[in-house]
Amino acid sequence: MPEDIRQVTHIDNVRLGEDERSVVIIDQSQLPNRTVYLTLRTPEQLYNAIKLLQVRGAPAIGICAGYGTYALARQWEIRDPAAFAKEFHHWKEYLNSSRPTAVNLSWALERMERVVTEHEGQSVEELLELLGKECRAIHQEDIEMCRAISEYGLSLLKDGDGVLTHCNAGPLATSRYGTALGPLFLGKEQGMDLHVFADETRPLLQGARLTSYELQKAGIDVTLICDNMASIVMKNGWVQACFVGCDRIAANGDAANKIGTSGVAILAKHYGIPFYVLGPTSTIDLNCPDGDHIPIELRDPDEIREKWYAEPMALKEVKCYNPAFDVTDHTLITAIVTEKGICRAPFEQSLAELFR
Amino acid sequence: MPEDIRQVTHIDNVRLGEDERSVVIIDQSQLPNRTVYLTLRTPEQLYNAIKLLQVRGAPAIGICAGYGTYALARQWEIRDPAAFAKEFHHWKEYLNSSRPTAVNLSWALERMERVVTEHEGQSVEELLELLGKECRAIHQEDIEMCRAISEYGLSLLKDGDGVLTHCNAGPLATSRYGTALGPLFLGKEQGMDLHVFADETRPLLQGARLTSYELQKAGIDVTLICDNMASIVMKNGWVQACFVGCDRIAANGDAANKIGTSGVAILAKHYGIPFYVLGPTSTIDLNCPDGDHIPIELRDPDEIREKWYAEPMALKEVKCYNPAFDVTDHTLITAIVTEKGICRAPFEQSLAELFR
Repeated sequence: MPEDIRQVTHIDNVRLGEDERSVVIIDQSQLPNRTVYLTLRTPEQLYNAIKLLQVRGAPAIGICAGYGTYALARQWEIRDPAAFAKEFHHWKEYLNSSRPTAVNLSWALERMERVVTEHEGQSVEELLELLGKECRAIHQEDIEMCRAISEYGLSLLKDGDGVLTHCNAGPLATSRYGTALGPLFLGKEQGMDLHVFADETRPLLQGARLTSYELQKAGIDVTLICDNMASIVMKNGWVQACFVGCDRIAANGDAANKIGTSGVAILAKHYGIPFYVLGPTSTIDLNCPDGDHIPIELRDPDEIREKWYAEPMALKEVKCYNPAFDVTDHTLITAIVTEKGICRAPFEQSLAELFR
Repeated sequence: MPEDIRQVTHIDNVRLGEDERSVVIIDQSQLPNRTVYLTLRTPEQLYNAIKLLQVRGAPAIGICAGYGTYALARQWEIRDPAAFAKEFHHWKEYLNSSRPTAVNLSWALERMERVVTEHEGQSVEELLELLGKECRAIHQEDIEMCRAISEYGLSLLKDGDGVLTHCNAGPLATSRYGTALGPLFLGKEQGMDLHVFADETRPLLQGARLTSYELQKAGIDVTLICDNMASIVMKNGWVQACFVGCDRIAANGDAANKIGTSGVAILAKHYGIPFYVLGPTSTIDLNCPDGDHIPIELRDPDEIREKWYAEPMALKEVKCYNPAFDVTDHTLITAIVTEKGICRAPFEQSLAELFR
């Protein structure tokens, strides 16, 4: 295995601080210009790190939230288990309100709280030990899930293929290999010749700042394009598959992912290119019947008007609409790739079967 | 007519300098932060103004090239008509090489040169007078064409409609009302309630910097979005028509326009929204059979990696593909709106009839 790939895939993007009272993350908002590690100790620091996309990517947010609640709980001087449970619930709800769309955040937080509620009667010390195990398990399982997703995803590609991806679902967004980018790293390790087209992904430019950075560092052939160039790249015949991550998948297969993903799926359908959504089963929300029930986060208009720029690119008084996600209709999705296997239509059935 | 609309639609974006030996333009690359007028005197200044998009928009480039060749010719101290014609040809070819895609550039330059070649035997003084008339005629005709296009375009809208547009085909790109934006200004003058969604149009952000600026200044309801948000805006039911300009239309109706236009057209088709291309007949190139024969300009990768930003958004070594235009297949176009009327499929026939 070339060493440079491991330098990309085996990074500590989110980890528990050595004191176990903090979470250490790579500040993704400063990449690719600076690799800065942040130590998050307070609820507000954790909340803002998620809100401001210093940590981002549905699985990474889940891991951060798991470690975060544990790190906070270790700081409390509460000895009464009931008071501990109440405090835990309060801060869990607080962190859960940082971003609404990715289900992994609430999934990880619920999983942590369940440790507390399911062990009523145990001491705070015992609860802390169980919580520590749980957040480490969330992380470890994500590593294994990403590996399995990468293997299933790679089975959909052949040597020489061009793959278009949107936003970032690589090591920074997840654990180790990533989800949508996982098959590309794995393919590179196996000596395959793959060509990646990375949408820059406005307004926060995760494709430019993170995806092209990760792939370039790993020695994978990557071409950065503006989001509006996906159509010509597909028309040129350069793309044999689209791989994207996901933030929440409804029971019918409708998938919320970074804004612009639904447009890529429509283009792929037009050009006859398969469109794959890759993510762990923790992203599937069977309680959510369809995409209309997925809440879509609206973000600050200044992300469009002026963020990143040396000077504003639009008048301050110009209105902006800035949804962070959109929903790709299940009819546009060729397959959903999970750690448990590849689901195809009818998704209502194939997704439900994953949980049996 | 509200005064604020005239302040947008009746600007001098390109005009002949008072000495008639220069061209004065608004430097569009500095908008919306600064309104700076540039005086272009040398061939190199004219070439670079077009190349660097200080003047842009197919009709505006044509007008600038017309005035430009005249202003240059007035500077020469050549008395021999044959030497004059040779010199004229040389600089016409030079300016024509500044950008390859928009046909208006070569159309205006050919039209100017024809004045010289068709009046063989006349004195340089007489030729200069004819050239002066010709470049003014190109400009005046564009004003009339834009007005007619705006009226035909407006006939396709009804009160309350939402219109999505890509790039900039307003007063800055043309003369007075513009092409794709013309119906919106005209509708506003007539008291219509229209809602515009302006794609920001990466990488050069003409939608953010120019379109949202022009519409906002004119008091038209405009919402700026990133290019990848067109899909969700259409899905939300907010768009009843797409209006875009064009840089070259082939005989079969295939239309080259700013990169990303073809993607908008595919989305519009998916969501059942009519997609209109607006432009003067000078944009129609009957010598070009189809879109495959339209040369597509490739531009500097740094426009994607670092232009506008306070610091780079991608590693310098990351490859970029940066086509300035794409071709929208004629099957995706509901109608082509010209100053002579509205053409519908079969375009091969309806476009040819315009020239009969």
